[in-house]
Amino acid sequence: MFKYNSPQLTAVRLQDGFLAPRQHTNGKVTIPAAVQQCRDTGRIDAFRLQWCPGMPRKPHIFWDSDFAKVLEGMALQLMTDPSPELASELDEYVDLVISAQQPDGYLNTYFTQVEPEKRWQRLSSNHELYCAGHLMEAAVAHFQATGQRKFLDCMCRYADYIDTVFGPGPKQKKGYPGHEEIELALCKLYDTTGEKRYLKLAEFFVRTRGQEPNYFQVEEGVAAERLPALQAHRPVAEQHTAEGHAVRAVYLYCAMADLAARTGDAALLTQCEEIWSNITEKRMYLTGGIGSTPIGERFTIDYHLPHDGYAESCASIGLAFFTRRMLNLTGKRQYADVLERILYNGALSGISLIGDRFFYINRLESGIDTWERGETFAKERRPWFSCSCCPTSFCRFMPQLATFCWSCSEQELRLEIPAAGRAAFRNCQVEVQSQYPYNGKFRIIFHGQEQFTFSCRIPGWCPSATISLNGQRQEQEALQQNGYLSWNRLWQEGDELEVALDMPVEFVRADLRVSACRGRVAIRRGPLVYAVEGLDNAADPGALVLDLKSPWQPEPVPGLPEGTLGLRGQGWQECLPQDCGLYFSATPQWKQTSILAVPYSLWQNRGDTRMSVWLRSGNECCPGGII
Amino acid sequence: MFKYNSPQLTAVRLQDGFLAPRQHTNGKVTIPAAVQQCRDTGRIDAFRLQWCPGMPRKPHIFWDSDFAKVLEGMALQLMTDPSPELASELDEYVDLVISAQQPDGYLNTYFTQVEPEKRWQRLSSNHELYCAGHLMEAAVAHFQATGQRKFLDCMCRYADYIDTVFGPGPKQKKGYPGHEEIELALCKLYDTTGEKRYLKLAEFFVRTRGQEPNYFQVEEGVAAERLPALQAHRPVAEQHTAEGHAVRAVYLYCAMADLAARTGDAALLTQCEEIWSNITEKRMYLTGGIGSTPIGERFTIDYHLPHDGYAESCASIGLAFFTRRMLNLTGKRQYADVLERILYNGALSGISLIGDRFFYINRLESGIDTWERGETFAKERRPWFSCSCCPTSFCRFMPQLATFCWSCSEQELRLEIPAAGRAAFRNCQVEVQSQYPYNGKFRIIFHGQEQFTFSCRIPGWCPSATISLNGQRQEQEALQQNGYLSWNRLWQEGDELEVALDMPVEFVRADLRVSACRGRVAIRRGPLVYAVEGLDNAADPGALVLDLKSPWQPEPVPGLPEGTLGLRGQGWQECLPQDCGLYFSATPQWKQTSILAVPYSLWQNRGDTRMSVWLRSGNECCPGGII
Repeated sequence: MFKYNSPQLTAVRLQDGFLAPRQHTNGKVTIPAAVQQCRDTGRIDAFRLQWCPGMPRKPHIFWDSDFAKVLEGMALQLMTDPSPELASELDEYVDLVISAQQPDGYLNTYFTQVEPEKRWQRLSSNHELYCAGHLMEAAVAHFQATGQRKFLDCMCRYADYIDTVFGPGPKQKKGYPGHEEIELALCKLYDTTGEKRYLKLAEFFVRTRGQEPNYFQVEEGVAAERLPALQAHRPVAEQHTAEGHAVRAVYLYCAMADLAARTGDAALLTQCEEIWSNITEKRMYLTGGIGSTPIGERFTIDYHLPHDGYAESCASIGLAFFTRRMLNLTGKRQYADVLERILYNGALSGISLIGDRFFYINRLESGIDTWERGETFAKERRPWFSCSCCPTSFCRFMPQLATFCWSCSEQELRLEIPAAGRAAFRNCQVEVQSQYPYNGKFRIIFHGQEQFTFSCRIPGWCPSATISLNGQRQEQEALQQNGYLSWNRLWQEGDELEVALDMPVEFVRADLRVSACRGRVAIRRGPLVYAVEGLDNAADPGALVLDLKSPWQPEPVPGLPEGTLGLRGQGWQECLPQDCGLYFSATPQWKQTSILAVPYSLWQNRGDTRMSVWLRSGNECCPGGII
Repeated sequence: MFKYNSPQLTAVRLQDGFLAPRQHTNGKVTIPAAVQQCRDTGRIDAFRLQWCPGMPRKPHIFWDSDFAKVLEGMALQLMTDPSPELASELDEYVDLVISAQQPDGYLNTYFTQVEPEKRWQRLSSNHELYCAGHLMEAAVAHFQATGQRKFLDCMCRYADYIDTVFGPGPKQKKGYPGHEEIELALCKLYDTTGEKRYLKLAEFFVRTRGQEPNYFQVEEGVAAERLPALQAHRPVAEQHTAEGHAVRAVYLYCAMADLAARTGDAALLTQCEEIWSNITEKRMYLTGGIGSTPIGERFTIDYHLPHDGYAESCASIGLAFFTRRMLNLTGKRQYADVLERILYNGALSGISLIGDRFFYINRLESGIDTWERGETFAKERRPWFSCSCCPTSFCRFMPQLATFCWSCSEQELRLEIPAAGRAAFRNCQVEVQSQYPYNGKFRIIFHGQEQFTFSCRIPGWCPSATISLNGQRQEQEALQQNGYLSWNRLWQEGDELEVALDMPVEFVRADLRVSACRGRVAIRRGPLVYAVEGLDNAADPGALVLDLKSPWQPEPVPGLPEGTLGLRGQGWQECLPQDCGLYFSATPQWKQTSILAVPYSLWQNRGDTRMSVWLRSGNECCPGGII
């Protein structure tokens, strides 16, 4: 069982200067842009089922998932920013999707039009069940946003049909998706409809995965060495590390967490904890990115975290979903700490401030030494990709930002991330006033009267904090449990909590087994990881060395949103001899220089420039006076 | 025209402690092991043409090239170490290969047995012409070693047949190989037989490559973005940088150099110079390795040289062949400098001292943070690979080592690399006594009497040298021309040159655009690049920081061959706090330690250990006292 729940989208609101504008932009720019791209590329028309061989804009196996994610985003956005225009546009698209359903309940534009004979033929690579899953998630969101059942019922018919095709029965396929997603979608469908068959089908897909005889190997001739990439190298019950394609992996782990919560399977929960720890303690970038190589967009091995690895936007978002589930299951602060890190760094870095450009991969260093491997590796964010999972992931991720800031149970409301905003809990409205993430001081004001436990997270990065309730200094130790301050009381109108989180500039190092980070430090303040961009500085980041002893102070950054604080400190620029060539043995010269760093998630919003998160540092108290 | 020639294999001999034993091992261990592998895997039996569908050991499209390279190696080895057993074994295999030739002259075990209908169908990927090229090179070597024409004539028939299939004629294919090789082989066939058609066919393959309409695109539907990987993205005459698959690329550049020499095409020579400069000044590892990524085993962009890139053994060997041709064409020392670097570092690192284990890729850093991607990326050298081009490349490369040490023309003999050994020139025997590469002092003794110009290279890495002739100190400036000391005189029996090359320990840095090398130095002494192995030191190389101010002294290395000199100096070990986790903000502690480095090409010969060529360094005279 979940210890906590995410709040209803309609019960929370963001009013801060960092996240709220991005969420607003999602409705105004990102979703309309994605809809236009889906229209231009044929992803919408595909649902008219009028494509015939020889025609242009031939449907692709993953097209349905893109449009489904946009629809889910529209529904979620509708809950945060109600709009009649958006509502009617969504309604029109929903009717179009429903119209593509086949008499037997099947709904897939590619296999209905392009390869009808191939239905369910190659689960390991055809994305059929993956598309179904995203359509189901969209249908659930549409029901929650509008109360209309038509899309939900349509997807239940599809799920009912899939339930006849797959299962333990003699005539049923023992297969499971090559790209996980439907498992967690079926759990949502179960939560929404109460239909136990959906939960059982989700469990079937998860538990059958990797069992002997291996379905992908035996039925589809997939080579044994490719199975780990598909999380099908062994039964899920025997998986304890994060393997293979990062997005597929975290979607599977989301489903495992969902099943653990709904079936009370303690062993499955333990596995989720083990896998989450393997990711965050050995295979995650400082920014919350995951996936270290373009070869299979996958996890590799512990401590292999090259700066130009992969860290796909969708993978960070998926890790946020998995981590949110773990936070709900356990209530442990470590999950909120990582959730916050992903949110403020590796996830938002994938989308431009204007909201219509996206990174597919989020490298921690860019420059002419970063090999460009086509659109996926584009130096600057792009409007769309031939495989455009990332832009559409943002459409549905951004409306949920506010829900990551709060957790709730029957008796307790928890403030996980003190972004300015508000939450409705029972008869109370709880308001947060802050300049988070740039300032650690914030006020929590209670409106209404109600008895309940209110808790406030003291982030793992925070060395010390002072708290007062209605002006009374609170003893932290007395209140603190596992990183949360809690008060169980009858809250009164106007009650006010004041919290001041100490938010020093930190210089972060990595385990020496991370080759790329040896002799380098990253700059962090509060939840924000900082990056040095060439355009703010005298030289490319690669030529700069930080002086850790100099004072590093927040300062506004020209060209970034009002309120954005960079960090300025001192350092040196390495100057090489003229025409020294590729390799040389002369000693470089050093020039004192001032260095400005900006929040990583906001980099590359002022034109193409070189960037580095991990920088060399000097002035260490060690024999050579070096790092 | 070539300004210089490589000496005949039979005119030179190695007697040093570094290269000679490796060449000897090739005959005693490497070739027999490769023959056994070819037998076990079916590469030899394939030539019996008895394979039928359903049988095991189905021939593969590149199998012929592997056995051909072993045969070439046997022939070359026969010239350096005559042996009746080897001769008769070779003779038997040659007869077997000849027996597989078809009535029309065609000779390919895969397309004769497995896909006879596919002959010449998919040049971009079928390796058909590539296999033909290696068979031709083997035939030329066999003729040179034995004087027998049977194999040579067989390959001439094959070349004659290919000449009818490909060419500018109306009924002829306008295609060219996806994997270059036959172009340079045809030049050798032309040199050996004088048949101009072979030179013209080589020229046709080179000049047609990348012309519009693009053969690979139009005839084989290869996607435009794949063309650079095949060096077919534009006409060869318009290629000025090294692109695509590294081995294929350098084989093409070898052929371009061969054509420039035989046709006197100055533009082609200029291109070769531009491409060679692009490689060595922007895309080559310090060790002489090339190819920065496993994705297509290819060149990427300037300054993209990650430590765990690729640097395939075959690519280094191919670059040595290309560089040798450029040295012959121009006589410029820069080519000898790079040739020497490849020879003593990036090439020999690919083969174990025992001679039966091989690296497919030669990384500059290894450790648990280096992601293993299957056999190709094996941490330890392996006996064979499913794609086993590298082991068979050594079979034919090792017998040629002595030829890289000398250049000759009608009037001049040049000592390029002063490895102990001897060369016959006209009526003279020139003997070199040295402990090169570990010692810069060497003596050159002349036997016999002859008037000619003798030249000795002063390596680019050498800051100063002293030379005496028969005890008379020679004025370097007076003698030196472009890095070579020359004497034109009537050499007498017992004439003796004494050369002392200053061979200091150097700390090499890389252009700051090479991200992986920022803040790091590599240790070099003379032609040798050094590496630090974990097993010689107190900590993993990644935790070590070099003290560049401490004296670095040569010392013997336990477990490596007699005479091997490592380099020992001082440094520090970085000690992290206990359980600091993946990322932490505590300051590390430093411990003084002594550090031993060994020649890079000899690493991983004493069991699996972590290794690094580029290490952090301290004690710099810069404001922060850091690098």
